[in-house]
Amino acid sequence: MEPARIQLVPKIRKVIYPGTFDPITNGHLDVIGRAADLFDEVIVALAMNSTKAPLFSELERIDLCKEAMKEVMPHSGHIRVDSFSGLLVDYAKKENAIAIIRGLRVLSDFEYEFQMALMNRKLEDITTVFVMPNEKYTYLNSTIIRELAKYGSDISGFVPECVNKKLKEKFSKK
Amino acid sequence: MEPARIQLVPKIRKVIYPGTFDPITNGHLDVIGRAADLFDEVIVALAMNSTKAPLFSELERIDLCKEAMKEVMPHSGHIRVDSFSGLLVDYAKKENAIAIIRGLRVLSDFEYEFQMALMNRKLEDITTVFVMPNEKYTYLNSTIIRELAKYGSDISGFVPECVNKKLKEKFSKK
Amino acid sequence: MEPARIQLVPKIRKVIYPGTFDPITNGHLDVIGRAADLFDEVIVALAMNSTKAPLFSELERIDLCKEAMKEVMPHSGHIRVDSFSGLLVDYAKKENAIAIIRGLRVLSDFEYEFQMALMNRKLEDITTVFVMPNEKYTYLNSTIIRELAKYGSDISGFVPECVNKKLKEKFSKK
Amino acid sequence: MEPARIQLVPKIRKVIYPGTFDPITNGHLDVIGRAADLFDEVIVALAMNSTKAPLFSELERIDLCKEAMKEVMPHSGHIRVDSFSGLLVDYAKKENAIAIIRGLRVLSDFEYEFQMALMNRKLEDITTVFVMPNEKYTYLNSTIIRELAKYGSDISGFVPECVNKKLKEKFSKK
Amino acid sequence: MEPARIQLVPKIRKVIYPGTFDPITNGHLDVIGRAADLFDEVIVALAMNSTKAPLFSELERIDLCKEAMKEVMPHSGHIRVDSFSGLLVDYAKKENAIAIIRGLRVLSDFEYEFQMALMNRKLEDITTVFVMPNEKYTYLNSTIIRELAKYGSDISGFVPECVNKKLKEKFSKK
Amino acid sequence: MEPARIQLVPKIRKVIYPGTFDPITNGHLDVIGRAADLFDEVIVALAMNSTKAPLFSELERIDLCKEAMKEVMPHSGHIRVDSFSGLLVDYAKKENAIAIIRGLRVLSDFEYEFQMALMNRKLEDITTVFVMPNEKYTYLNSTIIRELAKYGSDISGFVPECVNKKLKEKFSKK
Repeated sequence: MEPARIQLVPKIRKVIYPGTFDPITNGHLDVIGRAADLFDEVIVALAMNSTKAPLFSELERIDLCKEAMKEVMPHSGHIRVDSFSGLLVDYAKKENAIAIIRGLRVLSDFEYEFQMALMNRKLEDITTVFVMPNEKYTYLNSTIIRELAKYGSDISGFVPECVNKKLKEKFSKK
Repeated sequence: MEPARIQLVPKIRKVIYPGTFDPITNGHLDVIGRAADLFDEVIVALAMNSTKAPLFSELERIDLCKEAMKEVMPHSGHIRVDSFSGLLVDYAKKENAIAIIRGLRVLSDFEYEFQMALMNRKLEDITTVFVMPNEKYTYLNSTIIRELAKYGSDISGFVPECVNKKLKEKFSKK
Repeated sequence: MEPARIQLVPKIRKVIYPGTFDPITNGHLDVIGRAADLFDEVIVALAMNSTKAPLFSELERIDLCKEAMKEVMPHSGHIRVDSFSGLLVDYAKKENAIAIIRGLRVLSDFEYEFQMALMNRKLEDITTVFVMPNEKYTYLNSTIIRELAKYGSDISGFVPECVNKKLKEKFSKK
Repeated sequence: MEPARIQLVPKIRKVIYPGTFDPITNGHLDVIGRAADLFDEVIVALAMNSTKAPLFSELERIDLCKEAMKEVMPHSGHIRVDSFSGLLVDYAKKENAIAIIRGLRVLSDFEYEFQMALMNRKLEDITTVFVMPNEKYTYLNSTIIRELAKYGSDISGFVPECVNKKLKEKFSKK
Repeated sequence: MEPARIQLVPKIRKVIYPGTFDPITNGHLDVIGRAADLFDEVIVALAMNSTKAPLFSELERIDLCKEAMKEVMPHSGHIRVDSFSGLLVDYAKKENAIAIIRGLRVLSDFEYEFQMALMNRKLEDITTVFVMPNEKYTYLNSTIIRELAKYGSDISGFVPECVNKKLKEKFSKK
Repeated sequence: MEPARIQLVPKIRKVIYPGTFDPITNGHLDVIGRAADLFDEVIVALAMNSTKAPLFSELERIDLCKEAMKEVMPHSGHIRVDSFSGLLVDYAKKENAIAIIRGLRVLSDFEYEFQMALMNRKLEDITTVFVMPNEKYTYLNSTIIRELAKYGSDISGFVPECVNKKLKEKFSKK
């Protein structure tokens, strides 16, 4: 059975990977890379105003996301960094995205993600697609990274070089 | 930023939705429908020899899957029913699939699915993509359907008509 | 075997459904309705001082609970709205309640609820009874409702009309 | 606000506590005792044909349940031991029960119980009420009891005396 | 097979039990007692600056830990109370500890603990050893204790006498 | 504070790592290695009669455990391979072990392990100590290994060489 490609070709399958990215880590990059293999366009979308006391400002976080893309995935022209405020589903609708991408690292992510996914589907009938980052990133999240950086631990294995450099600047200033 | 479509268009993104489908339910169909919206081709792949004492034979299960597709998604030419024996990753590689699709209904599915997904990625670097069926199918699985059918409950809301009919035949014979 | 009704009739089985209700949702109302079918008297009990920065004041929340009862369950004379400060078990003892009612929506509620239920039983030997709201309220909680209302989403399917109206007022003022 | 007792008094609130009881343990008895405090009538209902290779026959299990009731709760005239085959909801409907009682000991019980509760509510709109047994029975289930009895461990703290005696007979014969 | 004791005898197996201990409870003491049975030296290590608005100051918390040791385990010369700031793994390395001890009470502790344990192992290759406190402490944590003390509940069964006394002082002053 | 070593030195801290080991994997070996770093003597204890249709006989499994020890930990004189039938706690008591070692890979292991640990502590007051294997073994268990070997997958990264060889023999014969 040959798939009816005619009606499918023109459709660009765009997905959104939302987050606070404070800062972006190798775990995020792993998810982005997988999404980029599966879909035509991936928007890395910074949720604005979502974090009360972020380490990095919104502009800094967007810049770090963009730099990280150049550093790690220089030839991935179909990945774009953007930001949004308001509800994710409203942004997804405006962007004409077919799905929201979320990384599921651990079970404790699961139910919060499920609730959000169900609510988003209810609000705008948008599907959430879950992918797992590599198991070596199971223990990795931005909170731990900030804590490690604060005490001068070597985090070069956990974040892209641009983030590592920026974190060092941030904490040497303090 | 415009995605570099040139190299992407010729690639048919094929995914595999494996299962025992004993029998196929509306929960399965919900997952298949979502996968069909996201990818170019979906193979509903019956895992052979995976169930010790199935209610339906492999041939019956494949037929029910095919009939259900015709009944529920008659115009989805890019969904195909197939079967495989051996390891799922070997089948996925042979089929040149870019991902395995799994439905995540409840948390208790989660860790088994994660283990399998991690192992499959280790063995053949294939990504597993999780989608959630509609919350009204949370309580639905083939075991419960078989139990309900056995005692003559009305299951018309939980399975496609062809499965409902076949289950009635099966249990009236007994 | 006929139950010995004589000693049971005079006993009014009163239960308490505690919460912060900021604001009351259709999920809460679903649990209240089920409790009302099972017991002689249900007290919807607002826990005062339990939320740091509530959207609605205590008086507003109590009023919304009362209005919601009138709107949704107008003939349920055995449901009462009340408030308490201090420990729930002390309030339950004072009210002579035989049980505390809690809704269990998702697994992540489970252990916190279990700890509280165990502690309450230890402190005053009061039983906690868990009921499940309809699965369509799985993704519903007051935090999500407040977020949706803030961005002007249509939440009429998730809250009683009186709450919907009050939320619109609240956020249009801002 | 005084509850409208007039229409409530004649209603006998009957609940069903289903199980395989192979054999009945102190954990089960703890749940039965709690249910008996909350409702007018409790039916301890043995699910027949539900266990493939039970240790005790159905008749033995019913007798042990009855003996245990006499031993532990001699004055609880409103607890009845019964058995049923087929679907629990059909039995509950026939008995005019207002709820099904289930003990929730551990999180791993949770999702199976939730699925069954949701399905039962869907089939016959019957509410499932969850209560927690005492935390000292967390580690207790019939499988562990059978294993301990088999190797001659002292299980007098975990089961009623009649079950302890019967288990000793069973395993000394073997 | 006789273990090669010669190289093992000189090694003092030291472990660290880190926490905020605001205040120390009988659940903590239960874990410390178990660790003291298994290893040569146990350091009860207060993590400084880890709690935003603690009930007790760091000095008070250390003193309560020391008093509790004297009260409950007066002859356990191999248990020491200490404090540390910065990363736990750096402290553990400095102290030459062979493992970190953590109590696992409930499943919701599990994944956070796992993430920290994996990260600590990655950073300094230190093993985390989990032990379970007695099941009667399942519902016990410092947050609940502070809440109960605030409303004047009897908490003598949950904390050592020195903590009980101090909590009464604290809340009678207020 | 110097620990009172005098009374501690003569005590050999022996622990038991029970399992079915059908067959032993690199995940098991990782746990055994960690236990060997923490305690004076580790008994790898094969639970006899615990598996209905094992791939390898008890003798084969014991031999593979012994060979694996020689292959992977040749100088670990304080690790011993043994077998037991009956209850684990009776064996542990007989061996004078101070603890039972269990690997916790995933959350779904957690509650079963907890129930067993609580029951064992109740029966013979023996402590269970949980350690995590390396995260790269999260997806690894004997069932998956047997399945992979059956279909001729390369499993050399998951099991010691002696097990790899034996599995190839086993499945080429069939």
